[in-house]
Amino acid sequence: MLNLQLPLARHCAFIKLRLVILRVPVHGLLTIDLQCCEGDNILLNALEKKLRSLLHGNIKRVKRLPALIRGAAVDRYWPTADGRLVEYDIDRVVYDEDSAYQNIKIMHSQQFGNILILNGDVNLSESDLPYTQAIMGRGKENYAGKEVLILGGGDGGILSEAVKLKPKMITMVLVEDCVPVLKKYVEEGKTFDYVINDLTAVPISTAPEEDSTWEFLQLILDLSIKVLRPTGKYFTQGNCANLTEALALYEEQLGRLSCPVDFSKEVVCVPSYMELT
Amino acid sequence: MLNLQLPLARHCAFIKLRLVILRVPVHGLLTIDLQCCEGDNILLNALEKKLRSLLHGNIKRVKRLPALIRGAAVDRYWPTADGRLVEYDIDRVVYDEDSAYQNIKIMHSQQFGNILILNGDVNLSESDLPYTQAIMGRGKENYAGKEVLILGGGDGGILSEAVKLKPKMITMVLVEDCVPVLKKYVEEGKTFDYVINDLTAVPISTAPEEDSTWEFLQLILDLSIKVLRPTGKYFTQGNCANLTEALALYEEQLGRLSCPVDFSKEVVCVPSYMELT
Repeated sequence: MLNLQLPLARHCAFIKLRLVILRVPVHGLLTIDLQCCEGDNILLNALEKKLRSLLHGNIKRVKRLPALIRGAAVDRYWPTADGRLVEYDIDRVVYDEDSAYQNIKIMHSQQFGNILILNGDVNLSESDLPYTQAIMGRGKENYAGKEVLILGGGDGGILSEAVKLKPKMITMVLVEDCVPVLKKYVEEGKTFDYVINDLTAVPISTAPEEDSTWEFLQLILDLSIKVLRPTGKYFTQGNCANLTEALALYEEQLGRLSCPVDFSKEVVCVPSYMELT
Repeated sequence: MLNLQLPLARHCAFIKLRLVILRVPVHGLLTIDLQCCEGDNILLNALEKKLRSLLHGNIKRVKRLPALIRGAAVDRYWPTADGRLVEYDIDRVVYDEDSAYQNIKIMHSQQFGNILILNGDVNLSESDLPYTQAIMGRGKENYAGKEVLILGGGDGGILSEAVKLKPKMITMVLVEDCVPVLKKYVEEGKTFDYVINDLTAVPISTAPEEDSTWEFLQLILDLSIKVLRPTGKYFTQGNCANLTEALALYEEQLGRLSCPVDFSKEVVCVPSYMELT
């Protein structure tokens, strides 16, 4: 299912046409699509009634889905990390621009507040303080007077919480700059008390197309450990709480590092990711 | 969008056919539906690439939705109370039967545990203790030695929590029996320390088709207050946290009762309703 919106939309009057597609894609399954410019439950009701009568009620299951709204000014469909279709209660677009790196959207949801969406992925919302608290050690760490390195974190959530804890210095590095900057720090012998990796989620599989992400994650981890003081701590996230397979793969990777590492983990659920909290 | 599943499904081999529907429902919007028996992102990628080239990249927005799975053994689409389309992470059907009153489904979700679905509405899940605690007064009430009347509550959540609190007697009444049973109690002068109304949600509007629900709710409320001891308390729910309009309408109704009532409210979010917690 694909929608393309062309620049004409605003200049033309809407033409109200209905299209009904009735199909038997496999024996025993009948699908009906009603496409129209406005909700049209009356027609679907009549169709269902007629089919029930024609088929003498010989139907195992009927399922009707809420209308999918396509081409609307506000797009409410943003899939979850595990690829499920979810309609958010988004009521307005706050910001929508292409930067040199990516498409940046801020959408407002009644439940979650402003949601940052980067290249179509739900990134972080005003509701998601549990995420930020977890990736900073959940209030058990003393950041006062410390040197903190944030990798990524462009939504500003970690920065906003970290400054409250009076560290000596916070350094934030864009995802695109991470590798060269970290390499420079290694050369210079620059070290940090905390490295917080808020870059990308761990891949869901080790399939070939995911390999580059694993390589990137390993490279960042390797460099991070080199810039970490002996008493320092490295914090990162894995993937969404439901993707237990991805999280297990990550733990496997930790066992394969050049230096042995000890780690602990905590599961928190992110409200705007539609996870159970 | 409607699916009908006929009893043939299990007996026939699947026929793999693709159907692509390309449509310009209004000027400036082009929609493409790809219907197939298995995921087919390669074809959608090729279509999108071709269209970008044909339209010289003159496209404002492209949106691709995850495949909607129709006619599957496990149905994962259960709309929220405010009518949004949501795909749950349901992995198996635990129970699916028609009772004399309604269709009863228990579906298992990795996040929410077992979910009770009555006539297609998500009712309560194993994750939803906050709902049950809230409708019982959130631990601030002393049920020991008290007489408790539960109206509805067929999922057993309230009953399960109430018995732990050692009341003298818990009476549960089916929604269908509520009016005659309450009327009988009023006649007999039978009273309760707690009446917990776990029947239906308040309507979203006062439109004609919703009137019967409002009348039912008012009748139940009126009868409940008559069987309540002077020191008694009446607990109920309104509707989902997002439906602020429905909740405001309910408060309006409380001002119209024959006897003046005082009330307090608390908002809790129900995990399996995909509400923010």
